[in-house]
Amino acid sequence: MNIYRFPTEAQLQEITARPVKDAADFTATVAAVLDDVRRRGDAAVIDYERQFDHVDLSECGADAPLAVADAEFEAAAAACSPELLASLQLAHDNIARFHEQQRFEGDVVETSPGVRCWQKSVAIEKVGLYIPGGTAPLFSTVLMLATPARIAGCREIVLCTPPRRNGTVHPAILMAARTAGVSRVFKAGGVQAIAAMAYGTQSVPKVSKIFGPGNQYVQCAKQMVALTDVAIDMPAGPSEVAVIADATANAAFVAADLLSQAEHGADSQVLLLTDSPSLLDAVQREVEAQLARLPRRDIAAEALSHSRLVLVADMREAMRVSNIYAPEHLIIETADAQTLAAGVVNAGSVFIGHLTPESAGDYASGTNHTLPTNGWANAYSGVNLDAYCRKITFQHIAPEGIAAIANAVETMAAAESLDAHRNAMALRRIALEG
Amino acid sequence: MNIYRFPTEAQLQEITARPVKDAADFTATVAAVLDDVRRRGDAAVIDYERQFDHVDLSECGADAPLAVADAEFEAAAAACSPELLASLQLAHDNIARFHEQQRFEGDVVETSPGVRCWQKSVAIEKVGLYIPGGTAPLFSTVLMLATPARIAGCREIVLCTPPRRNGTVHPAILMAARTAGVSRVFKAGGVQAIAAMAYGTQSVPKVSKIFGPGNQYVQCAKQMVALTDVAIDMPAGPSEVAVIADATANAAFVAADLLSQAEHGADSQVLLLTDSPSLLDAVQREVEAQLARLPRRDIAAEALSHSRLVLVADMREAMRVSNIYAPEHLIIETADAQTLAAGVVNAGSVFIGHLTPESAGDYASGTNHTLPTNGWANAYSGVNLDAYCRKITFQHIAPEGIAAIANAVETMAAAESLDAHRNAMALRRIALEG
Repeated sequence: MNIYRFPTEAQLQEITARPVKDAADFTATVAAVLDDVRRRGDAAVIDYERQFDHVDLSECGADAPLAVADAEFEAAAAACSPELLASLQLAHDNIARFHEQQRFEGDVVETSPGVRCWQKSVAIEKVGLYIPGGTAPLFSTVLMLATPARIAGCREIVLCTPPRRNGTVHPAILMAARTAGVSRVFKAGGVQAIAAMAYGTQSVPKVSKIFGPGNQYVQCAKQMVALTDVAIDMPAGPSEVAVIADATANAAFVAADLLSQAEHGADSQVLLLTDSPSLLDAVQREVEAQLARLPRRDIAAEALSHSRLVLVADMREAMRVSNIYAPEHLIIETADAQTLAAGVVNAGSVFIGHLTPESAGDYASGTNHTLPTNGWANAYSGVNLDAYCRKITFQHIAPEGIAAIANAVETMAAAESLDAHRNAMALRRIALEG
Repeated sequence: MNIYRFPTEAQLQEITARPVKDAADFTATVAAVLDDVRRRGDAAVIDYERQFDHVDLSECGADAPLAVADAEFEAAAAACSPELLASLQLAHDNIARFHEQQRFEGDVVETSPGVRCWQKSVAIEKVGLYIPGGTAPLFSTVLMLATPARIAGCREIVLCTPPRRNGTVHPAILMAARTAGVSRVFKAGGVQAIAAMAYGTQSVPKVSKIFGPGNQYVQCAKQMVALTDVAIDMPAGPSEVAVIADATANAAFVAADLLSQAEHGADSQVLLLTDSPSLLDAVQREVEAQLARLPRRDIAAEALSHSRLVLVADMREAMRVSNIYAPEHLIIETADAQTLAAGVVNAGSVFIGHLTPESAGDYASGTNHTLPTNGWANAYSGVNLDAYCRKITFQHIAPEGIAAIANAVETMAAAESLDAHRNAMALRRIALEG
């Protein structure tokens, strides 16, 4: 861990900077896979699954070889412990409660007499969710992405995830998908999964927006298809936490919070901002002690090697630095956490008080854990109900509305040299005046 | 104009397809300019302005050679007619009224006892607006992009637009910028303007999100900087209108609406859906008659050459086709327009009734005219107040909240093999139980 005491502005630049990404360019590799799936559909996906996930899917179900069958869902239900199923349900219910409150009802606004304008929130018809494979099954992300999609009213919610070596999908992922209301689950991972959802194949429907995490190839694929074919949730980077803590904070809690970020990956970003030298020392000791007992201590240790513990003059300065950094997660463990939280300008999700760890929001408090990283919190929201909807604008103009705005429309259209625009209004005005 | 009568599903595919884009790849050219501005800042912008806009800005103001000075604003005020200034003000006021109603106040949701979650809408601190040059000054777009930015509370609203040959900015653009609350206007166009706002230069501040239209080079530059440096409003394509009309429609109004889209550019998309053969014929005649009188008739004629007038069985089918097409603008000129409008699933902005031309929303009714094109309406909203804000989530957990969700969090974290996540909750639970 790197300690900074009362850093200068130049040091703050360094502390709040994100690591410069590897210059490796996957574009050509990714483009080739995208193009192949676009042309050959399911057959190409099956080939890449054999190559990258070492699974032969060609034997499974003639109609839709990639689709998870009902029998596999039934087996998954039996394979999950009752405790895990109850936890999934509790988490889902809280996520549902929070996102249901995000429904939008627009008022009709009469902007000029007789000119009525309003917004209507309409769900995106087809959305695709990507859930990576790897060592740990990210079933919590299934809940986070599918629950708001169902609440928004998306007509089709497709989920792609790579199969395990034995050709099945992890039971917890299937049970989370069923709990949250996913329409269909397909066995496809990596770039081929993104391509399948962006272009559609014989099995996988084309969607209008793709959500979800993934490795650098998946992220590159999402950004490439987003240029021309499909919307995506947001750009991605390593996961991050900033903790603002004062002398009232519990060093063991703070250390656990820093470590819960550090264990995500070697590139995880960990930042502590405090005005208490003794807390800083205590956190340092606690991190070492807790780290030793963690199964993923090697990963966490590597992330900690570039972590930053920063002593600042006061909490006001801590918040200023946090806003420059724009963390994905911000935990405020101070005496006046509620007051301090009012000063947040740039962050993805904020956890207030000594009893509010990030892991609450990662799983079960109800907020979404798909959040902007890498400084994108200065421009992007995390995933929320809006992310699955469009706000379509509507307007209706009555005769008195024409009288109110026709002159302005005609004058501006003429000044922009757009005569047909002017005519469209003038013809109506004249018809009414006639 | 191309006439289709009761098209088959295969023909509908063709009718609703977007033109395949020119395969021309500007990436290398655009990347070189972006990189040069990133390295050399103002000096590079000045060089490209000399090269592309034929203007020497190096003489103007040592401190900020690209910034429009107060004196130029004063001159602009004098150069605009009182009628144009009044029209700008009326349009601004309507846009402001509509976007002010879009302010978001989130409720606190208690998802489990003692677990309180909420969203807060916070303005993006710095936004950049791009307004192209060219034959017609798009001052209406200045109002559309800057007014919601000011209402959202963006701290800095920067506008870049290319200077005219004489080195000044069109007065109407400056007056629209002043009316809407732009912080600073800079003389920079094309890729160099996008680069200046994405990276910052000595004069131009780096922003977090870039809005606005532009040619293919500008769009390519926006998409490239959006990969790593800055958010953008949305991808862009040719402007579009679909009109749904029945026998009650006024053929002259419909023709004027189609032409007001066609005059935008040779690639503009124009689609009429009607169940009335006589209306279709009358619209065709009216288009020819009105076209002959338009100053921009050459552009409009080219756009009309690929336009489609489609006879469908009924209004229900018209709406189905419109939803497949997902038009930027949809005008419904039918007897039951309000009822029909309830069926809109994919569109950017909808104009209801015989007296509601698209040009109302283009200028002065209050809705935004920056809308998704090229089928993106199936996934994107038009520009609205949300586009200038992030919804940051907050949460606070009381002791009873730990009791309510700790078991679910710990169970799920363990099942995802994330022990530090589990610890962060377990330590709090144990401390409270202790």
